[in-house]
Amino acid sequence: MMRTRPLKVALLGCGVVGSEVARIMTTHADDLAQRIGAPVELAGVAVRRPSKVREGIPADLVTTDATALVKRGDIDVVVEVIGGIEPARTLITTAFEHGASVVSANKALLAQDGAALHAAAEEHGRDLYYEAAVAGAIPLIRPLRESLAGDKVNRVLGIVNGTTNFILDKMDSTGAGYQEALDEATALGYAEADPTADVEGFDAAAKAAILAGIAFHTRVRLDDVYREGMTEVTAADFRSAKEMGCTIKLLAICERAADGGSVTARVHPAMIPLSHPLASVRGAYNAVFVESDAAGQLMFYGPGAGGSPTASAVLGDLVAVCRNRLNGATGPGESAYAALPVSPMGEVVTRYHISLDVADKPGVLAQVATVFAEHGVSIDTVRQQGKDGEASLVVVTHRASDASLSGTVEALRKLDTVRGVASIMRVEGE
Amino acid sequence: MMRTRPLKVALLGCGVVGSEVARIMTTHADDLAQRIGAPVELAGVAVRRPSKVREGIPADLVTTDATALVKRGDIDVVVEVIGGIEPARTLITTAFEHGASVVSANKALLAQDGAALHAAAEEHGRDLYYEAAVAGAIPLIRPLRESLAGDKVNRVLGIVNGTTNFILDKMDSTGAGYQEALDEATALGYAEADPTADVEGFDAAAKAAILAGIAFHTRVRLDDVYREGMTEVTAADFRSAKEMGCTIKLLAICERAADGGSVTARVHPAMIPLSHPLASVRGAYNAVFVESDAAGQLMFYGPGAGGSPTASAVLGDLVAVCRNRLNGATGPGESAYAALPVSPMGEVVTRYHISLDVADKPGVLAQVATVFAEHGVSIDTVRQQGKDGEASLVVVTHRASDASLSGTVEALRKLDTVRGVASIMRVEGE
Repeated sequence: MMRTRPLKVALLGCGVVGSEVARIMTTHADDLAQRIGAPVELAGVAVRRPSKVREGIPADLVTTDATALVKRGDIDVVVEVIGGIEPARTLITTAFEHGASVVSANKALLAQDGAALHAAAEEHGRDLYYEAAVAGAIPLIRPLRESLAGDKVNRVLGIVNGTTNFILDKMDSTGAGYQEALDEATALGYAEADPTADVEGFDAAAKAAILAGIAFHTRVRLDDVYREGMTEVTAADFRSAKEMGCTIKLLAICERAADGGSVTARVHPAMIPLSHPLASVRGAYNAVFVESDAAGQLMFYGPGAGGSPTASAVLGDLVAVCRNRLNGATGPGESAYAALPVSPMGEVVTRYHISLDVADKPGVLAQVATVFAEHGVSIDTVRQQGKDGEASLVVVTHRASDASLSGTVEALRKLDTVRGVASIMRVEGE
Repeated sequence: MMRTRPLKVALLGCGVVGSEVARIMTTHADDLAQRIGAPVELAGVAVRRPSKVREGIPADLVTTDATALVKRGDIDVVVEVIGGIEPARTLITTAFEHGASVVSANKALLAQDGAALHAAAEEHGRDLYYEAAVAGAIPLIRPLRESLAGDKVNRVLGIVNGTTNFILDKMDSTGAGYQEALDEATALGYAEADPTADVEGFDAAAKAAILAGIAFHTRVRLDDVYREGMTEVTAADFRSAKEMGCTIKLLAICERAADGGSVTARVHPAMIPLSHPLASVRGAYNAVFVESDAAGQLMFYGPGAGGSPTASAVLGDLVAVCRNRLNGATGPGESAYAALPVSPMGEVVTRYHISLDVADKPGVLAQVATVFAEHGVSIDTVRQQGKDGEASLVVVTHRASDASLSGTVEALRKLDTVRGVASIMRVEGE
């Protein structure tokens, strides 16, 4: 029962991902037609530099006028792989207004303006799918939105940035410092010339906002996500982590508070036990660990970036959106009914690993312990090491709020006997 | 835009999974209604023993007449968690005939009669969803059917049976033999009193048939799946595996042939490198590793069994099926358009680890190597160990067909100098 009139697809952007989407649409046309129930046809490709030769894409499909392409009126699905806020946002909105559904890989835009885009999709009765926006090829949005639709997600712990995982994995396995590992990542093409978006956690924060929104049926804006980069993680931190049977990962963490009444979203480096499934995620791979009431602990693992993997996610969405159009239906839209408040970082409760440089004399430990006690932060273990009049004190706490811990650290810094706070690292995944 | 007339659900079976489905439908009724767009109501529960007290289920919903329940005509979705072939098969078919969609957790039935059930669903324009049939709570069917719908899957390697993974993990970590590890699994409730379905690979074979069918868009019957249990795996095999930097897992392996023209499906114990993501799947957890053209390597990990996890998968399907009904649509049905031939085990190509007990005298290695060469099986490494006139020879081959390897082994057994073939183990995941 194959329909013969093809569904028309407009492709916005023809870089690494877009060209791979176009290639697969051509080489796997028969498979896609069978899976959709109708052929799909590339109706136009909007690019910035029309002169660039694009293998396999007929020249007459290429245009620099993306707006005219999405306004044509005969486009069934717009695939947006331009990235960035504008012109992507206006083009997507225009696409809905002219009757198209949209598949996007644009995490920055979804994290910033997801609510408005979902509203536009719903107003026009169209689909907005974006599996490729988080963790590349790893099926994650669909499992969270659909497979776990009958469950209650309590926590999402994700390694959602391949560049930083490559760097941290390198530091862990070779003992290298941050700069050395970054240089290698850059040389191998895993890090961009300006790695800020990755190493400062901006990229992961956008993904955290999207994941938290879906997991908790609540709108979570990019501004709601606490963000801390990983540029200050040192080789010494990795040695400390090893002593605790841990490694260090840059994690996106979305949590429902214990009382269920609020949620938090944050990105920062954290120690996790080597026995945790996320600890063995190597190189530039991504993985997202999900804890829910009924399903328990799940993990989704795979390549988090790259043209081909991202194209796989885009095409999965394209098939779903095309099937929906043939059915005259739409898939699940934004689900924000729970509308839980997003708490600030101060209310996050976790464990901490704190390294202090202290004077090597009697009574220091008692002083330090008193400060922790005064701020209601309970100590799990303390390790003291002396050398030449200087000493270091490593404190691992029980669970405490971020606000209490901040107060503790502030007070510790004021102690005469504390020369400095060498590092503070959260401990997760226990 | 909530519809007020509730969707009616009939629950067939109220054991570990069914009672958990009923419980979540009650406790999470508001969430489910929001996610579906209409309330869902438990309209009837068919059980075998009506006298058993079922907490939270009103007695007037309980019936022993499952057939009458599915024939009522006002049922929107039938949830089948009875298991086994009959009466489940007839009840599902009857449900379709009377206008209901079906959510099933029944791997045995799906593996044996999936084609007929899908045909019945399509004939009546209804959905058949079965995420819970493979790997419990792990979202797997939906990602394979939908997320990877634009990609080409080449291989699926799965740990899909928690009982056997628990036993093998125990043997690996403690050096225990099979019987000792099985006894512990039984004592802890991970293995049933009669563990045959698990340890002989029947359970995994049913899941392999389902996975291969979905991955390759081809009908794969249970009879098409080669099956070998794990009862003959020894502590010595684990020592050999360790020497190779491997562990041993019972794997369900679905592969597309290198030329793309056929597929195979098989279940057997195999050595896999410790660096492979499947190697670190511990205890009773399941995980499925998928290799595709565009996405590359993905892994899905989680609890493979248990009332709660299985209920999570059932409820995810229930939400999807209810949404489809409200949309007047159906989800993706069976996709068997590729109709690739399923090749027999003899055509499977992989590597082998073979332990031979041989006479400790000159010329034995030359004899053995000649036999391998005559059968076209190329040797990668050989390790020889002598003790008291006896010696063992461990041969690891390059990739060869199962038929060539079988021929080799048969010829080896006929050599005077070969006292016995101690073990043959396939090596996968490299």
